[in-house]
Amino acid sequence: MIKTPYLLFLGDAPDQLAAKVARGIRDWRPENVVGQFRLDGCKADVGVPDMSLEEAWEQGARTLVIGVANRGGIISQGWKAVLHQALDMGYDLASGLHNLLRDEEDLVAVSKSAGRTLHDVRIPSVKYPIASGVRRTGKRCLAVGTDCSVGKMYTALCMEKAMREKGMNATFRATGQTGILITGDGVPLDAVIADFMAGSIEYLTPDNDPGHWDLIEGQGSLFHASYSGVTMALVHGGQPDALILCDEPGRPHMRGLPDYKLPSLEQVRDMALSLARIVNPACQVVGVSLNTSAMGEDEAVEYCRMVEKRLGLPTTDPFRHGAHRLADALQAL
Amino acid sequence: MIKTPYLLFLGDAPDQLAAKVARGIRDWRPENVVGQFRLDGCKADVGVPDMSLEEAWEQGARTLVIGVANRGGIISQGWKAVLHQALDMGYDLASGLHNLLRDEEDLVAVSKSAGRTLHDVRIPSVKYPIASGVRRTGKRCLAVGTDCSVGKMYTALCMEKAMREKGMNATFRATGQTGILITGDGVPLDAVIADFMAGSIEYLTPDNDPGHWDLIEGQGSLFHASYSGVTMALVHGGQPDALILCDEPGRPHMRGLPDYKLPSLEQVRDMALSLARIVNPACQVVGVSLNTSAMGEDEAVEYCRMVEKRLGLPTTDPFRHGAHRLADALQAL
Repeated sequence: MIKTPYLLFLGDAPDQLAAKVARGIRDWRPENVVGQFRLDGCKADVGVPDMSLEEAWEQGARTLVIGVANRGGIISQGWKAVLHQALDMGYDLASGLHNLLRDEEDLVAVSKSAGRTLHDVRIPSVKYPIASGVRRTGKRCLAVGTDCSVGKMYTALCMEKAMREKGMNATFRATGQTGILITGDGVPLDAVIADFMAGSIEYLTPDNDPGHWDLIEGQGSLFHASYSGVTMALVHGGQPDALILCDEPGRPHMRGLPDYKLPSLEQVRDMALSLARIVNPACQVVGVSLNTSAMGEDEAVEYCRMVEKRLGLPTTDPFRHGAHRLADALQAL
Repeated sequence: MIKTPYLLFLGDAPDQLAAKVARGIRDWRPENVVGQFRLDGCKADVGVPDMSLEEAWEQGARTLVIGVANRGGIISQGWKAVLHQALDMGYDLASGLHNLLRDEEDLVAVSKSAGRTLHDVRIPSVKYPIASGVRRTGKRCLAVGTDCSVGKMYTALCMEKAMREKGMNATFRATGQTGILITGDGVPLDAVIADFMAGSIEYLTPDNDPGHWDLIEGQGSLFHASYSGVTMALVHGGQPDALILCDEPGRPHMRGLPDYKLPSLEQVRDMALSLARIVNPACQVVGVSLNTSAMGEDEAVEYCRMVEKRLGLPTTDPFRHGAHRLADALQAL
């Protein structure tokens, strides 16, 4: 687990998009953020106070999170002076970059002499078990998508927020790098060894109170030729009681696979449900989450209404219009 | 790739079963075996000439394969003198044990100074690509099972043999440790990083002649809560043209999962076919392979006949009665 609260390191981000991870943390776990640290020329701003390492330390910050991705996902030499100083002051470092903190000899040396921890959230830090398939107490909801990157993480985070607002007991469970940095914990599923994938999800979503919901971040798609095995492990390791179908309307083909059309929501529903019921015969599909960011407001509302009628399931863009109806659907189960 | 031919190291195997891997190599690739090396007290014999390291070297052997598994899968101290001598003479070593050759400091030191290679076939030796989903030339057949360890490897090996006897162009493609030691090459799929599973199978079964068949060793089961993601990667990475359904009748529950009954062959057929057709719409289920080793001869014949009638597919125990009818079914496609 990564120590909170964080100081968000934006470095010399060339634009807002480069600070997407920092933005995600600010949006979803504002209580974990004391401020941002920007180098000269930084073009990003996630709307929290600019702070020096000393100021943030006094505010309680204990981890400097690299919330910026430059081209190639590398750790820039221009960042090093700040990263060294942070380690010397007592900060841990956390990063989701491809270029691992632990592969930088100078960072390893400084962190060792300072007694600090380098968190590379792309790499599992735990030896996961083989999945047992045994039923756990508490309830679990999994977002399954027509494709990669259709909004499964945002769906789960929006649902967590809506459920907590209703007084429900809900926990977002991160399975990817951004989600892990947002929450400080989780399983980097795409980097887990094949035999332990389903077991890592059992580990992530253990026994809990009967009324508690885990909202498991989905990955890939059962219909995606590159990553379907990862999705399968989520379905069987997660043992979901409820599935949310996720889609981004209008995609011309599966992400990275120009020869593959997206499946229909009906195909995803039928396939995911057949597979989930192997481990949880009571599993239900309870709603649809659409990423309508490319549509105007009227078009988005009309599209959701049309899908809702077609599938007979509560349908919403949870980021645009809130996830209350999806939360209601879980509560009604 | 592991250099052939092999000298099979049986060590101090306490019984025949402990030399299962050596036996598999002898059964399926006799042309790769010059002899066996046994220590005092060895209770196994795979039916090839006993040889010293020197005799085998003269016969052309270039790899000493550890064909024995003792309790815990460890590398016994009592084997070390022979392993050192083999490395000094010019042999590579190959092992599928949990205890890796590369984790033994003395073996690493001797192999380095002798310029030899230590092959730990449990660990991928290649950086596999992400799967592209692009269709390849040539044909592929995948064995899918109701459960783990129902005979998928033996089915594929028997089919390769029967197809070669018919003059067909066929290659067994190993996806597990024993298969890799048998053939000298393959992908240890259960040890591959999640994101690269399907890509490793594309790598294993590349473009080939239009009439060539890859016979892909199956792993796990789509219905096995612990390993279904691994199986999924085989279905989507393998893009099979043909599926063979494998079962061992009479199992009380899924292997390692006492709460789970085995699916029916019909359920495996329907699920595997729906998933395979995402990547290869022409995929067909062409036959059934039953492991009848627990049955008497009459019972086995009658059981196969009954399943054949029920599913309307050629059904056989290929290890007991040959795989000719499964080979015919592929040829007829």
